[in-house]
Amino acid sequence: MSTTFLTTAEFLEHWQGHRRLTRRVIEAFPEKELFEFSVGGMRPFSELAKELLAIAVPGLKEIVNRESIPFDEKRENLKTKADILKAWDESTELINEYYNKITAERFRENHNLFGQYEFPVYQNLLYFIDNEIHHRGQGYVYLRALGIEPPFFWER
Amino acid sequence: MSTTFLTTAEFLEHWQGHRRLTRRVIEAFPEKELFEFSVGGMRPFSELAKELLAIAVPGLKEIVNRESIPFDEKRENLKTKADILKAWDESTELINEYYNKITAERFRENHNLFGQYEFPVYQNLLYFIDNEIHHRGQGYVYLRALGIEPPFFWER
Repeated sequence: MSTTFLTTAEFLEHWQGHRRLTRRVIEAFPEKELFEFSVGGMRPFSELAKELLAIAVPGLKEIVNRESIPFDEKRENLKTKADILKAWDESTELINEYYNKITAERFRENHNLFGQYEFPVYQNLLYFIDNEIHHRGQGYVYLRALGIEPPFFWER
Repeated sequence: MSTTFLTTAEFLEHWQGHRRLTRRVIEAFPEKELFEFSVGGMRPFSELAKELLAIAVPGLKEIVNRESIPFDEKRENLKTKADILKAWDESTELINEYYNKITAERFRENHNLFGQYEFPVYQNLLYFIDNEIHHRGQGYVYLRALGIEPPFFWER
């Protein structure tokens, strides 16, 4: 018989824990390398952070408001590490606010995220975290390639 | 009020979906590079795959048998890509078998994983997936640095 693995409150705590770690990874990059350094022709970590910012709050807003808006990860106003960290912290608050508006039934309903990804809401949200861990793992390699010790993975 | 985000059956499906993707990443490496290539002094992807093998089934066995055994990621018998893929597929079956022996109450109990990580079972298991996504993200950078297109992240 299947039972609860994770509650909705635990999911939010888990997500915000991952976001605290990603924040430390952003902080670990020197200013210039955050915007310019990459390996294998991939995007610099600033662009990956912008992608994560473009998913979290806009994705939650869509789910709460039952609308689909094309994905837009451009964040041209974020030009410095301080800009990105400020946007990150603003998102932290907004995530708590919007997440807590999702009703129990809504987690199980389908939502066409960004007009592209038609899945149950809980699967969309799991993807938000998976995608963040995936790109952050990429950031760990960039830091190592720069000779910088990344933060401990298990600290949240 | 907090409600179910994810059921125990959904967690297993989610985990095995990630493992199918990691299997495709192992397959994408050329034989030699799987065992030798890395970036920034990190471990080659074969060693990361061995770590994942050393966590999944041994970790589940501990949880089911209520025992703590020191972590051992050496897998000296895995010398080729075919060896690793075979061990991967054997683990797939054993994961299903052992996971289904975990009782509803057990998911909420603390377990001292490998005698080192004292957390509720569901948190230990979440960590298994997080750690896999993290290291696989690292593997994506290795593949890109080798000029190889990695598998689509969203395909499971």
